[in-house]
Amino acid sequence: MKATILNIGDELLIGQVVNTNAARMSQMLIAAGIDVCGTYVIGDNADDISSYLLHCLERSDVVLMTGGLGPTKDDITKKTLCELFHSELYENAEALANVKRIFDARGYELTPINRQQAWVPRCCTMINNYVGTAPCMWFDVIDNGKLIIDNELPHNGSRPDNSQFSILNSQLKKVVVSMAGVPFEMVWLMENEIIPRLKEHFRTDQIVNKNLLVQGIGESFLSDLIEPWELALPKSIRLAYLPQAGMVKLRLTARGSHDERPLLEAQIAEAVKNLYPIAGQYIVGEDLESLPELVAYTMKRHGVTLATAESCTGGALASQLTAMAGASEYFRGGMVAYSNEVKECALGVKHETLQAHGAVSEETVREMVMGVRERLGADYAVATTGIAGPGGGTPEKPVGTVWIGIAGPQGVEAKLLKFGDRRAQTIERTCNAVWSELIKAVNCDQ
Amino acid sequence: MKATILNIGDELLIGQVVNTNAARMSQMLIAAGIDVCGTYVIGDNADDISSYLLHCLERSDVVLMTGGLGPTKDDITKKTLCELFHSELYENAEALANVKRIFDARGYELTPINRQQAWVPRCCTMINNYVGTAPCMWFDVIDNGKLIIDNELPHNGSRPDNSQFSILNSQLKKVVVSMAGVPFEMVWLMENEIIPRLKEHFRTDQIVNKNLLVQGIGESFLSDLIEPWELALPKSIRLAYLPQAGMVKLRLTARGSHDERPLLEAQIAEAVKNLYPIAGQYIVGEDLESLPELVAYTMKRHGVTLATAESCTGGALASQLTAMAGASEYFRGGMVAYSNEVKECALGVKHETLQAHGAVSEETVREMVMGVRERLGADYAVATTGIAGPGGGTPEKPVGTVWIGIAGPQGVEAKLLKFGDRRAQTIERTCNAVWSELIKAVNCDQ
Repeated sequence: MKATILNIGDELLIGQVVNTNAARMSQMLIAAGIDVCGTYVIGDNADDISSYLLHCLERSDVVLMTGGLGPTKDDITKKTLCELFHSELYENAEALANVKRIFDARGYELTPINRQQAWVPRCCTMINNYVGTAPCMWFDVIDNGKLIIDNELPHNGSRPDNSQFSILNSQLKKVVVSMAGVPFEMVWLMENEIIPRLKEHFRTDQIVNKNLLVQGIGESFLSDLIEPWELALPKSIRLAYLPQAGMVKLRLTARGSHDERPLLEAQIAEAVKNLYPIAGQYIVGEDLESLPELVAYTMKRHGVTLATAESCTGGALASQLTAMAGASEYFRGGMVAYSNEVKECALGVKHETLQAHGAVSEETVREMVMGVRERLGADYAVATTGIAGPGGGTPEKPVGTVWIGIAGPQGVEAKLLKFGDRRAQTIERTCNAVWSELIKAVNCDQ
Repeated sequence: MKATILNIGDELLIGQVVNTNAARMSQMLIAAGIDVCGTYVIGDNADDISSYLLHCLERSDVVLMTGGLGPTKDDITKKTLCELFHSELYENAEALANVKRIFDARGYELTPINRQQAWVPRCCTMINNYVGTAPCMWFDVIDNGKLIIDNELPHNGSRPDNSQFSILNSQLKKVVVSMAGVPFEMVWLMENEIIPRLKEHFRTDQIVNKNLLVQGIGESFLSDLIEPWELALPKSIRLAYLPQAGMVKLRLTARGSHDERPLLEAQIAEAVKNLYPIAGQYIVGEDLESLPELVAYTMKRHGVTLATAESCTGGALASQLTAMAGASEYFRGGMVAYSNEVKECALGVKHETLQAHGAVSEETVREMVMGVRERLGADYAVATTGIAGPGGGTPEKPVGTVWIGIAGPQGVEAKLLKFGDRRAQTIERTCNAVWSELIKAVNCDQ
């Protein structure tokens, strides 16, 4: 079963907004056992919406559209679908109640323009958008050579009851869904309404995923080490190596028919169990997605606390940790010591150290990391100081020179890193190196 | 003149990586006077690459492809283009010299697989990719009813000299470009090679943009205020309102033919000059893109310094400022005071204040912002404390309750904000509110 994604909006097309919806939707579809064959961005233009929708329907069983459902004139998706499917708009009572509820909660008056949000084509099944005012529309399309919308069947402008719905399903071949483009509305609709309905209608494959984070061994060495285990995996399981900064993510994916979920889960559990005797020493976490998640998991697992002292990363380390809920369980706080005076007064770096060795030096990073660990009373501390650029480099310390420090109960480690002259990349890579070294240190100590 | 963008890569299709290239490329094309009619993501699949390329060529003058040019087996764009255009691969000497230069600089040995990076189809013009090993390929396509690649003309495996190139150009109708998908390589190629060549070949329109950031007046009031000015704008200038968090961006876009640039620039300058007497009091910056950029501009313009004390934003404020080069000119540093002990020891918040009013309170945010201003010796300081969620809420202080504080030479202001239960959104909106209030305070004081 295949899906295409059609994201509509001038703001996406001209690059004013990066299209994050496509990646998010792809992830959700693939996790549900639905293949994605393409994602498209087009503008708010009726000809393009019609022609691309037909193009996508030729190549896939489901077309998932986002955007163009607002109340202003430039949003034309609903009107275009209505014309394409030879239908007419009517005011849906359930959609209207939802729009009223949302306006009441915000204390706004419902204007005639906003009331139009509750109008939907008669030929669609209206799916209530609980977190926004634009209803989601589900079109059952019969694809017998040419495109025919299923509007001769007895919808009568109301949502069909379940018995009718099931009868219709047996005749269906393709589905078009149009939903709001606001990211959190799209996510709510996909998770709560669309994915469950697609699974029911198409009897999608069952997918069971398992991620294992591996650290301390290179991808090729790991591959050699676990080759016999990999060859012994059942045919239903695929193994993917996803190298990330400072670690390798191993993803096991089991795929089977809709009634095989218990079997697939048992196969994955067995495979993971068999991997531990071979490579368990390198497995640092299960079902985690990123290095900051692994840091949080590691600190909480060992019950230890952390503090940060940042110069060149400028708050990025602290920000990555606190973006995740529950950071207060292990994160004490941090200092962003951008100027030398702040390194002295807030972290206790000695004036003579800065004078003799400069802000970007092993001596300074050691005093920074010890200073913040002691002052914030944490078990572990990390520090960064470097020249992120593009200015500030010298022949001895060119742009991209970075010192990082890790302090723990066993002492202090400092490490020199060398990057290029791209500021954002230097900040990102420095963060990754810090997390990687911190996790190694904590796992080694505890 | 119209372009389509075709981003190739399984990692994009399955949502493992968000496709930022499309937005970046659209922005660059539109700034160069080239319209974008669609952007597509497809997997590393030969049938899809061929069929979508032909589909895009039907609808546009230029197709810009990224991705699938690596040395591993899953990257098949080059081979697919070669077959589609009935050409053959050869080792391009200039491309090989570039690959060797890059391997030498990194100290790696050039393996046979990596040497293949220098192979390109005979029918293309090789464009050197100075920042990566995958050469860029430019295909001149004559579109006379059906697709014919221009491979009968005398390329002879070498890049044509300029005179031949000009002769070819006069016969050209369409262009296909295939380039690396690594974002910084794509940006370098687009800026330095592809956009200049497209401008030369197609005599694209001239576009002159001017952004004005407006603050302290709502979009509809602004629209009423400047209506007479807007109506008097020359026909070549379009005005767009781009509301952003805490401000409105006014974008003036002048468009004309390729020889009208001086005229367009004069028209824009005249329009901006005429706007100041009407709305100058609300214009806080020119040619800036975001609130953090406006903060940097404002602090530098007035020669004042800043410090941050963050609880619920957890380093995001500091990180946004230090992501921009030159932050050290005005940013002293900051504290991420996540735990109460750190609020006391690092910021000097009184134990009694925390006991009596709690960490999320007006009293605490006032002591935080005064504490950090004094301790880091800054002219201005900002502070945040709140419950970002999803846990930690109480009936009196539900999740989404945030206090922010702004301290300056004239005293301290505190403000209560109320958001919902989405952590990332609360952090982002709190940052926007802080920047907005800070800019108002600095502009008012100075």
